[in-house]
Amino acid sequence: MRTVYLNGKFVPENQAAISPFDRGFLFSDAVYEVVSVLGGKLIDFERHLARLSRSLNELYIADTIREADWLSIFRELIERNSLDEGMIYLQVSRGDAGDRDFYWPTPETSPTVFVCTQSAQLTDSPNAKTGISVVTLPDLRWGRADIKTTQLLYASMMKMEAKAAGANDAWLVRDGMVTEGTSQNAHIVTRDGVLVTHPLDRTILHGVTRAAMLELLAKEDVALEERAFTVEEAEQAQEAFVSSASTFIMPVIQVNNSVIGNGKPGPLALLLRNAYIDWAKNNAI
Amino acid sequence: MRTVYLNGKFVPENQAAISPFDRGFLFSDAVYEVVSVLGGKLIDFERHLARLSRSLNELYIADTIREADWLSIFRELIERNSLDEGMIYLQVSRGDAGDRDFYWPTPETSPTVFVCTQSAQLTDSPNAKTGISVVTLPDLRWGRADIKTTQLLYASMMKMEAKAAGANDAWLVRDGMVTEGTSQNAHIVTRDGVLVTHPLDRTILHGVTRAAMLELLAKEDVALEERAFTVEEAEQAQEAFVSSASTFIMPVIQVNNSVIGNGKPGPLALLLRNAYIDWAKNNAI
Repeated sequence: MRTVYLNGKFVPENQAAISPFDRGFLFSDAVYEVVSVLGGKLIDFERHLARLSRSLNELYIADTIREADWLSIFRELIERNSLDEGMIYLQVSRGDAGDRDFYWPTPETSPTVFVCTQSAQLTDSPNAKTGISVVTLPDLRWGRADIKTTQLLYASMMKMEAKAAGANDAWLVRDGMVTEGTSQNAHIVTRDGVLVTHPLDRTILHGVTRAAMLELLAKEDVALEERAFTVEEAEQAQEAFVSSASTFIMPVIQVNNSVIGNGKPGPLALLLRNAYIDWAKNNAI
Repeated sequence: MRTVYLNGKFVPENQAAISPFDRGFLFSDAVYEVVSVLGGKLIDFERHLARLSRSLNELYIADTIREADWLSIFRELIERNSLDEGMIYLQVSRGDAGDRDFYWPTPETSPTVFVCTQSAQLTDSPNAKTGISVVTLPDLRWGRADIKTTQLLYASMMKMEAKAAGANDAWLVRDGMVTEGTSQNAHIVTRDGVLVTHPLDRTILHGVTRAAMLELLAKEDVALEERAFTVEEAEQAQEAFVSSASTFIMPVIQVNNSVIGNGKPGPLALLLRNAYIDWAKNNAI
């Protein structure tokens, strides 16, 4: 049985308990991060922590845990759960104010902090070998997708809808433009060889893996355009892929009914995936 | 200390515990209802239960509790907590599947059911005597506001922003049109004496109190238009008011910087409020 961390304590997962009055449960008043682990070490820890701070600050939730303490918590969980490869999940809610009220409680209400581990095969992912298929679906999420909140019901619904349509996942479309995947940033390579990715605004998550990927891309002779792209551009792309903490860079080989490239993971996707895994292994802490 | 209901048991509120793996906490994968109580009796019970079923069905969450059982639970809580006037809050999440996964768990995962009471002065509300002020703010909520989910972070944020702006609450604006309040449906009376209220579509909650109000309105000689209205129309209205289970019909006397009517609760708002309270008292169960 896994050990999880909850509000200062390491407890067996079946003994972790929060109040149903927790604002994370009543109001989705909570943010989260997923940090991947390779060889028992944390990937891109600093950038995840920076984004966590940003999410908390946007919502005026107290940022009570110091970076060094997060690191200790993560390492303790990795150790206790003998985690070699997988993810650290952390969630911070505004806490339990003892009753239900839309208005935020006074600052003496402590945030609820929950951290758990998940074991997963990240580098040797079967999907990375074959590539995944996506369908495009309407983006009906709230207008602040840049804050990493637990308001994930729509993403969950769209993953289910994609599955029902026989696809691996969905790309979301707002005003005719692809914003991102349900839980990944979306990227295409045009027939002219330009990597196109949605700019960082309030309609997409500011991907930590996207940022690392763009740093790696800068070493290659590939043009980059940070702009929104249409569904048609995606369907006609030479390559497509997604990025996220838990999938790294994952090739996309079908968008709706259109096969991308030759139906196999594209060369830039594979180059970036391998470069990312190398970088991650060398820089994990 | 209040007694609350959680998954088949009545427990003291400080002993109610759910798992942090509950999908209501991790994914906002949950719906709720608020049923008001007057004189220890439930207002519009049937309509709230019908809407709960609709919300659950839209999300494919199992609708496991029969109407008669909800009634027993509510009455038991009213009795145990000596609730005379206030609200019953109920929440149903997709439950605890033991780990975090966007995909919905298999049907053997039982929904989590939580019910609590809140005491509040509903009929003699001080706000009803003076009327409330609202500011208009962008509606950035997800596109399925008709499903009563716990994705309430944005509503909470906008209530805080309205408060910071010196107003009692906010009306939300999408594409130039007022959709609804943060937790109430919004209505205006034009200078021509027409009651205008947003039609029931996916951008607003299908208010139980709105439905009851429109039934009462049908007995009056007042024209009704179910259509969206602009911020300017609201600012220039002869009357304005909101409706919700816990505020009943509540007069609005200011929209942004515009005083509505003579700055006092309007005659139709008061007529409907009184008619609603009479109806509620006579039909509570």
